Amino acid sequence: MDSTLLVAIGAAIAVLTGIGAGLGISLATGKAADAIARQPEADGKIRTTLLIGCALAEATAIYGFVIALLIVLLLK
Amino acid sequence: MDSTLLVAIGAAIAVLTGIGAGLGISLATGKAADAIARQPEADGKIRTTLLIGCALAEATAIYGFVIALLIVLLLK
Amino acid sequence: MDSTLLVAIGAAIAVLTGIGAGLGISLATGKAADAIARQPEADGKIRTTLLIGCALAEATAIYGFVIALLIVLLLK
Amino acid sequence: MDSTLLVAIGAAIAVLTGIGAGLGISLATGKAADAIARQPEADGKIRTTLLIGCALAEATAIYGFVIALLIVLLLK
Amino acid sequence: MDSTLLVAIGAAIAVLTGIGAGLGISLATGKAADAIARQPEADGKIRTTLLIGCALAEATAIYGFVIALLIVLLLK
Repeated sequence: MDSTLLVAIGAAIAVLTGIGAGLGISLATGKAADAIARQPEADGKIRTTLLIGCALAEATAIYGFVIALLIVLLLK
Repeated sequence: MDSTLLVAIGAAIAVLTGIGAGLGISLATGKAADAIARQPEADGKIRTTLLIGCALAEATAIYGFVIALLIVLLLK
Repeated sequence: MDSTLLVAIGAAIAVLTGIGAGLGISLATGKAADAIARQPEADGKIRTTLLIGCALAEATAIYGFVIALLIVLLLK
Repeated sequence: MDSTLLVAIGAAIAVLTGIGAGLGISLATGKAADAIARQPEADGKIRTTLLIGCALAEATAIYGFVIALLIVLLLK
Repeated sequence: MDSTLLVAIGAAIAVLTGIGAGLGISLATGKAADAIARQPEADGKIRTTLLIGCALAEATAIYGFVIALLIVLLLK
């Protein structure tokens, strides 16, 4: 069995981590849109909060991406 | 066993990351449409917030796409 | 085992990414129809927002489609 | 093992992408019917919005169909 | 192993795509019946909308049907 076989599967599974962030960030964005409709004059505060939270969630997707990159480039 | 066999499966699994973003971005869009109906005059603020969140969520789908491309082009 | 065997499965799994976008875009459309019923005079703003969000969600389905095409055409 | 074996399974899985769009478009239609009942005079606007969203969602089903066709015709 | 074995399974999986449309169209019809009960004088508009949406959803089931036919006729 060639060693690249399971490397491809491994990298693929690693990058799936992004599903959580992709879904979660969107749900947060939807809630923020809702919040701005209720308090339009607080949009700056709401957007700042959204950015802080989403940056942290995005990080989890980046972890999966970095590991997948390392698997593809170092283990092939 | 030919090495392209599992490479195809690997690339396929990697690009599945987009499911999270595809579903999530749409849910956020639905909420934003709702929010604009409630506060039509705040549509600029709501759309800006939607774009910020969706760009971050889209990024997670792009991570999966890049890894899938790398798997197809580098490991075949 | 012929190498086209798992290539077919791989391409099939890749294009499944479209399920997320297909379901999500529709849900967003339903919400937008709802929103227009509540604020018929804001239909332009709502439709613009719907288009922005759906274009981003559609992109995730296109990622899956491109990877499936690459798998079928490059790895067969 | 004959190479057409898994090709059949692959094409079948690819076309399953249509489940997301098929279910989603219907849910959007239901919401639109609801919306027209609430605002019968806005039916043109609602139907236009429904068509925009459903065309985008339908596209995801077509991606699956095209890949399934390619698998059946190119890889058999 | 006879090659018709997995072809039969493949055709069966392909036609399962109809589940999404079958369930969805029914839900949409239910919503439309509800909507007409609330606004009996808007039944023409609601029925037109239902037809547009269901035609698009029906198409996704037809994709599965066509692929199942191709699998049975071309790959047997």
